[in-house]
Amino acid sequence: MLAIYARFFGGADIEINYKPVEWLGNKVRFLDQTQLPFQETYLETTDFSVIVSAITGMKIRGAPAIGVAAAYGIALGALAIKQRNNEACISELKKVVAAIRSTRPTARNLFFTIERMNLLISEINDFKMLQNSIVAEALSIHDAEVKSSFRISQFGAGLISNGMNVLTHCNTGPLATTGYGTALGVISYAFHQGKNIHVLVDETRPLFQGARLTVWELKKAGIPFSLITDSMAGSFMLRNQVDLAIVGADCIAANGDTANKIGTYSVAVLAKTHHLPFYIAAPTSTIDRTRKTGRDIVIEERRPDEIIKFHDISLTLDGINVHNPAFDITPAKYITAIVTERGIIRKPYRQGLDEITNQVI
Amino acid sequence: MLAIYARFFGGADIEINYKPVEWLGNKVRFLDQTQLPFQETYLETTDFSVIVSAITGMKIRGAPAIGVAAAYGIALGALAIKQRNNEACISELKKVVAAIRSTRPTARNLFFTIERMNLLISEINDFKMLQNSIVAEALSIHDAEVKSSFRISQFGAGLISNGMNVLTHCNTGPLATTGYGTALGVISYAFHQGKNIHVLVDETRPLFQGARLTVWELKKAGIPFSLITDSMAGSFMLRNQVDLAIVGADCIAANGDTANKIGTYSVAVLAKTHHLPFYIAAPTSTIDRTRKTGRDIVIEERRPDEIIKFHDISLTLDGINVHNPAFDITPAKYITAIVTERGIIRKPYRQGLDEITNQVI
Repeated sequence: MLAIYARFFGGADIEINYKPVEWLGNKVRFLDQTQLPFQETYLETTDFSVIVSAITGMKIRGAPAIGVAAAYGIALGALAIKQRNNEACISELKKVVAAIRSTRPTARNLFFTIERMNLLISEINDFKMLQNSIVAEALSIHDAEVKSSFRISQFGAGLISNGMNVLTHCNTGPLATTGYGTALGVISYAFHQGKNIHVLVDETRPLFQGARLTVWELKKAGIPFSLITDSMAGSFMLRNQVDLAIVGADCIAANGDTANKIGTYSVAVLAKTHHLPFYIAAPTSTIDRTRKTGRDIVIEERRPDEIIKFHDISLTLDGINVHNPAFDITPAKYITAIVTERGIIRKPYRQGLDEITNQVI
Repeated sequence: MLAIYARFFGGADIEINYKPVEWLGNKVRFLDQTQLPFQETYLETTDFSVIVSAITGMKIRGAPAIGVAAAYGIALGALAIKQRNNEACISELKKVVAAIRSTRPTARNLFFTIERMNLLISEINDFKMLQNSIVAEALSIHDAEVKSSFRISQFGAGLISNGMNVLTHCNTGPLATTGYGTALGVISYAFHQGKNIHVLVDETRPLFQGARLTVWELKKAGIPFSLITDSMAGSFMLRNQVDLAIVGADCIAANGDTANKIGTYSVAVLAKTHHLPFYIAAPTSTIDRTRKTGRDIVIEERRPDEIIKFHDISLTLDGINVHNPAFDITPAKYITAIVTERGIIRKPYRQGLDEITNQVI
């Protein structure tokens, strides 16, 4: 499914030789992202509950990749159901969907997948046919994400000029999307257009997705970068060492308010203070128009251990008060533009997001 | 030397039962801050080069504490010199001073100490007398820092109201000052006045001074706190969960521009964006009027390993590009006020800093 890049770039310039999430006929193969950048461990499963724990435990993460993995997880669950009648099968399937739904509360793409699967469940009565349709739908969701992230990368690349220093936060490459990437796809595309760019990578505490995953992907792609702590971004902006900031999204509300990895809001405020463009890159599957503003987006609070331990090593005392919201909300006013697979949206976002999500493809 | 607090608080409310740096007649005893919060390891030495490596390796850190340790280090070096004549002794002593000077480039208090010691060296010809004077000067520098940080705490406490959520970055308590503290002293004093306060502690990457040291000090003092990653501060401000930010300083230029732990500038920008007061608390020994603005302050760049490893465990790939500036500059316009032992300075800072440093005590 990644052949599309090779075609575009003539098969030479680009190499994505890893597949974060893949459907192999009757099983799912996925890269355990918690082992990166040190080990490329692929796991295979026919058990949907392995997918549930992979999403919860962030072996698979990134909103678009979660949406894809959720679809394959439901497909695995559906294929494994062997009940005596349709009703019993549907009842089992609904438990599978509920388990997938409960993995993570913020990533919009998860619910986008679940809505599409629920539509099939409500429309198709014959369970055998439903099983086949669910597998086909999962493949279609994956295919759409791959195509979307490639289009996002194409549209967004025009925003990056030769010689730019580009700041990014968290991880938004193939690992996060199963495709070319969103924010990191934009950066990669600009680089493969021959632009001389340099990426400042926020390490992205607490789970170091920038230091572990973005660094790994940029190194593989041969794109020049420097790693910094999250707290350094402002200082580099003040010293005129950042020209543009671009990040992904986990959920975009109807008014453009955007949930993304914790720390994104600080980057946005700092970018505005320094008169730098701040872009969101995300597929339309990340938009949730039922959330009127960012206040309606549920922010996941994760375990204190993610902050007070690194692997099994304690950074500080046990049993202390810790806050660990996994995401924050960046109000729309801080966002220069939102890059989607259907084009670049600018203010007013409510209207732009309405138009783009109603568009018939 | 810490008895001053017990007197003020009637001997009951306050307990600082650790002495980060202490002079014991002919040797220095210090707490190895790299072992905190897990182990309270005190080291004793008569060898000034142990003090040099303790400062370089951040076993002793925090600008005022560095100033004190540097003074004691020079005293140890001076006491150990046994040359046949005055000139040879002075020559040896200058090597000691040079070694101490080379430890860290940003902390103003280090150079404040060195200037005072160099003045003695230039004024006193008899080496035996010079040795005694250097020891006396070191004790006087320590005593002044302890008194200063207590006065800072008293002056600053008035800025904190009952019920406030106070954000701080890095560590500025007894560990950093050998006294009551600067920013953390202000917080402690307000708490001991009976104010109901809650501290949001930035973990302070890369060396986790917030997570390791501030958490340890607040827990000892019984002050309620929550630990967050540096990247969360903005989000908590947006959610109205911060009322005030206060930090220390490593160097304050003549115009009020302030060098402090990397990440301070981001906190300052975020505070301004949310219309929250942002205070610096520092002794006048941190002010360097020979630096006209922040551009004249030298920022220490430390080893990449501090970012890519935690203890011996790698967080990411070796050999990648990493930036590790230990400090950033917060332009004066972001600073609501500077709390010193001689009072609270407000804009215009150039005038206020002139007046306060010229003041005869």
